Amino acid sequence: MAHQAHYPEHAGRNGKAHTLRMRRMGIDTYLEPVIYMRADCHICRSEGFEALARVEVWRDHKHIVATLNVVKAPLLEEDEAGLSEAAWRALGGANGDRIKVFHPAPIQSFSHVRAKMFGHPITMAGANEIMHDIVGGHYSDIEMAAFIAACAGNRMDVEETTAFTQAMINVGKRLHWGSQPVVDKHCVGGLPGNRTTLIVVPIVAACGLTIPKTSSRAITSPAGSADTMETLAPVDLDIAQIRRVVEREHGCIAWGGAVNLSPADDILIRVERPLGLDSDGQMVASVLSKKIAAGSTAALIDIPVGTTAKVRSREAAQELSARLITVGHSLGIHLETVITDGSQPVGRGIGPALEAMDVLAVLQNASEAAESLRERALMLAGRVLEMGGKAEAGKGMERARTVLSSGMAWSKFQAICEAQGGMRVPPKAAHTHVIVARHRGKVAEIDNRRLARIAKLAGAPKAHAAGLVLHAPLDSVAEIGQPLFTIHAESPGELAYARTYAEAQEDVILLLER
Amino acid sequence: MAHQAHYPEHAGRNGKAHTLRMRRMGIDTYLEPVIYMRADCHICRSEGFEALARVEVWRDHKHIVATLNVVKAPLLEEDEAGLSEAAWRALGGANGDRIKVFHPAPIQSFSHVRAKMFGHPITMAGANEIMHDIVGGHYSDIEMAAFIAACAGNRMDVEETTAFTQAMINVGKRLHWGSQPVVDKHCVGGLPGNRTTLIVVPIVAACGLTIPKTSSRAITSPAGSADTMETLAPVDLDIAQIRRVVEREHGCIAWGGAVNLSPADDILIRVERPLGLDSDGQMVASVLSKKIAAGSTAALIDIPVGTTAKVRSREAAQELSARLITVGHSLGIHLETVITDGSQPVGRGIGPALEAMDVLAVLQNASEAAESLRERALMLAGRVLEMGGKAEAGKGMERARTVLSSGMAWSKFQAICEAQGGMRVPPKAAHTHVIVARHRGKVAEIDNRRLARIAKLAGAPKAHAAGLVLHAPLDSVAEIGQPLFTIHAESPGELAYARTYAEAQEDVILLLER
Repeated sequence: MAHQAHYPEHAGRNGKAHTLRMRRMGIDTYLEPVIYMRADCHICRSEGFEALARVEVWRDHKHIVATLNVVKAPLLEEDEAGLSEAAWRALGGANGDRIKVFHPAPIQSFSHVRAKMFGHPITMAGANEIMHDIVGGHYSDIEMAAFIAACAGNRMDVEETTAFTQAMINVGKRLHWGSQPVVDKHCVGGLPGNRTTLIVVPIVAACGLTIPKTSSRAITSPAGSADTMETLAPVDLDIAQIRRVVEREHGCIAWGGAVNLSPADDILIRVERPLGLDSDGQMVASVLSKKIAAGSTAALIDIPVGTTAKVRSREAAQELSARLITVGHSLGIHLETVITDGSQPVGRGIGPALEAMDVLAVLQNASEAAESLRERALMLAGRVLEMGGKAEAGKGMERARTVLSSGMAWSKFQAICEAQGGMRVPPKAAHTHVIVARHRGKVAEIDNRRLARIAKLAGAPKAHAAGLVLHAPLDSVAEIGQPLFTIHAESPGELAYARTYAEAQEDVILLLER
Repeated sequence: MAHQAHYPEHAGRNGKAHTLRMRRMGIDTYLEPVIYMRADCHICRSEGFEALARVEVWRDHKHIVATLNVVKAPLLEEDEAGLSEAAWRALGGANGDRIKVFHPAPIQSFSHVRAKMFGHPITMAGANEIMHDIVGGHYSDIEMAAFIAACAGNRMDVEETTAFTQAMINVGKRLHWGSQPVVDKHCVGGLPGNRTTLIVVPIVAACGLTIPKTSSRAITSPAGSADTMETLAPVDLDIAQIRRVVEREHGCIAWGGAVNLSPADDILIRVERPLGLDSDGQMVASVLSKKIAAGSTAALIDIPVGTTAKVRSREAAQELSARLITVGHSLGIHLETVITDGSQPVGRGIGPALEAMDVLAVLQNASEAAESLRERALMLAGRVLEMGGKAEAGKGMERARTVLSSGMAWSKFQAICEAQGGMRVPPKAAHTHVIVARHRGKVAEIDNRRLARIAKLAGAPKAHAAGLVLHAPLDSVAEIGQPLFTIHAESPGELAYARTYAEAQEDVILLLER
């Protein structure tokens, strides 16, 4: 968020008058930089700054745009400005260093967002300006929220999506690999416990295909692949480390955010996450910008469909599929999609560590492994092997099964974990609570959204061990008092919170008596 | 934002463990309440709270939802929680009082906002839930920004607008007047210097009609009527004071926000303002909720049209007009609209005090008074007199002119100012800069939006004396070096900022050479 640049045009005029001494406040405002200034300091008075104003803060030649909090009490000396942790990190320097504070230049690109709300599509040039300003830290959280909402739902067409994807690629880094093809797989998410990536990557890599997988952390779900992988090995790899892992093992499972492949996406996610938003157009832009930046030439996209999954109908899935393929084609990446069953969780665990346990059982060919997770992963791995020329059409799944059952996939997974920095044992939750059936019945429906919410209330994904384990899949029969799922939490407060919610939602697992 | 209510269900369980001592931090975060807690305090640890979490804070039986900032340094004792000014005001109490901090209940109503982004209209029940939660302080700023953007532009239909208007009325107070009709006038805004309200109200009141006018402060403009009136008399009247003024003088010009007539609107404006958004549906809901809550039975709505006004075409004006009338009818208020010329500012001044000077000149029948402002105000006052039965159809304007030229309107205005707390002299800016013509030409176009922006950069509306005075109306001829407009600012920083922008926008007043 800090930039090497020249002082703004108006800065020279009145240089000294704009100087304050910086001080670390030790206040964590997450990623939004905040500056604390006294209402009676000479800058607030001369510039007419008031609380919540956006201001430009310069130290030497680094600058950020920060939100102003006005301080009245003796928290600061008159010639001091306090900085939140995010502002402090971005500016560098030490207590007492001189900083200068100005009005920021108006955000011209926000006019495109405003126009979008009135139905005018955003052009390539507009998308570039918006992404440039977002990555430059010029958008406040509410401006980003408005941008996200303006484009959310079904409000971006194919051209806009293409423009945004290209714009997101333009503002980030891009990896290049010596050999081709470079393959990838991605799930659009929305289905808890669908942790196939950690099985597909070792199978595909064991067959010699290059698969430099960068995954997200959760946006609206209780765990992303990066969150789950993190319970098994480090995922915060830089580009040089990813290159080393992939050159040695053909594959990796790293957190995309650490390598800044799509920095705009990482910033947007910070606001999308608390809003629980993750729309079609933005999903396509987010996925493709990361795949293309990672240097992939072909990717398989898994689209789970279910009434309570992210994609609710086959029609919606086909629309999303068409958009992914079209946008991918126009940006030079070969995509295939597969529409899968999203009516219930794929594995049993929901939450980073609990999903990791499911993955380990499959890779280790354990007898208690979740069949549904194994079969889905084999199907996806098979398709990727076919796309990458490592299996004939229709023979990929068979090849994948051999690689898994032979133990080659498990060996490869361990090797990848070692290459990423060493394998770990997933943590276990200190607090659990079992939700039981209040009457006898057959499981007729499972509400993925509310299950995910319970896992999130329990602390997932930030609390790695938190989440839940489902004991009653669709069509199974539960007797009265029989466990339906177990909530796992790292703190009693989170357990109580998830439990209170779960107990008020009896139909989250719908039991019909006949 | 604080409520009398019971502790949340889960609060009882673990009461003592959730207690901290409150401390006023003296940090002004504007209206968003912020709580500062140490990362290592027992609540953050047991509840798993992290920076930016939304938390419920209780003192006795008052509670608020606040945004958490985590504090690392020795800013706080381990058992203390700091409160921003907004949180401090809402909770009441003194340093050292015990407060309790919990996870907030999930905001159920946000699912309606999410659904809206996918094209599902919001129902009456949904609108009620959203407004209830907004007024309850449960929406964070980014959630409000997303809600506003989801409904912005042309995305609300008549039924949704009606539902939102009714919902906004439901969560506020409502005035009742003994006699009928109770009239009102309103301008949808977007045209700088269109300060007719301060002329219409005294004319109408002088004729004996009841006109309890509550005005907004500026949203996207450099001055609202309340901002302008405030330079001439107090506008922060409570309901009892409004009643007293209107009973004595038949009319008032008060700030609506002070009487909480539409508290939801006041909260939304706080986020709409920095976003520069003010959409059709929300405009209708905002205007009508205030008129109806103020007890009006009939209202005239002025809709200025111009390519750079808020409403850009006659078609758009007719659409807005139809929506206002339809929604008004279904909510039991008689509306008429008048579509006016919005191609240039109506008066000469732009900014609270500068617009007040224009108003005074008209009321005092001064020879230098702006004719355009006077004629527009007389036309509007005439229509209101006709709607209120004080003039025959077509005779209202004549009657209004008599009341103005006789000095009755000026007397009434002074009486209203006295009744509101005493008349004031508008402030004058300490710093001015004249922008001159760089070549000879005839004024062919005036960009209202950019003019408004210059006035805002100069500090309007917060700095009352700030803004600009236009010297070159449409069709006038300017010689090289002749003043086009004068920027007024209260601080050198703001003057420099407005001037830098103005100088880069030569065509804001377009001079054509022939």
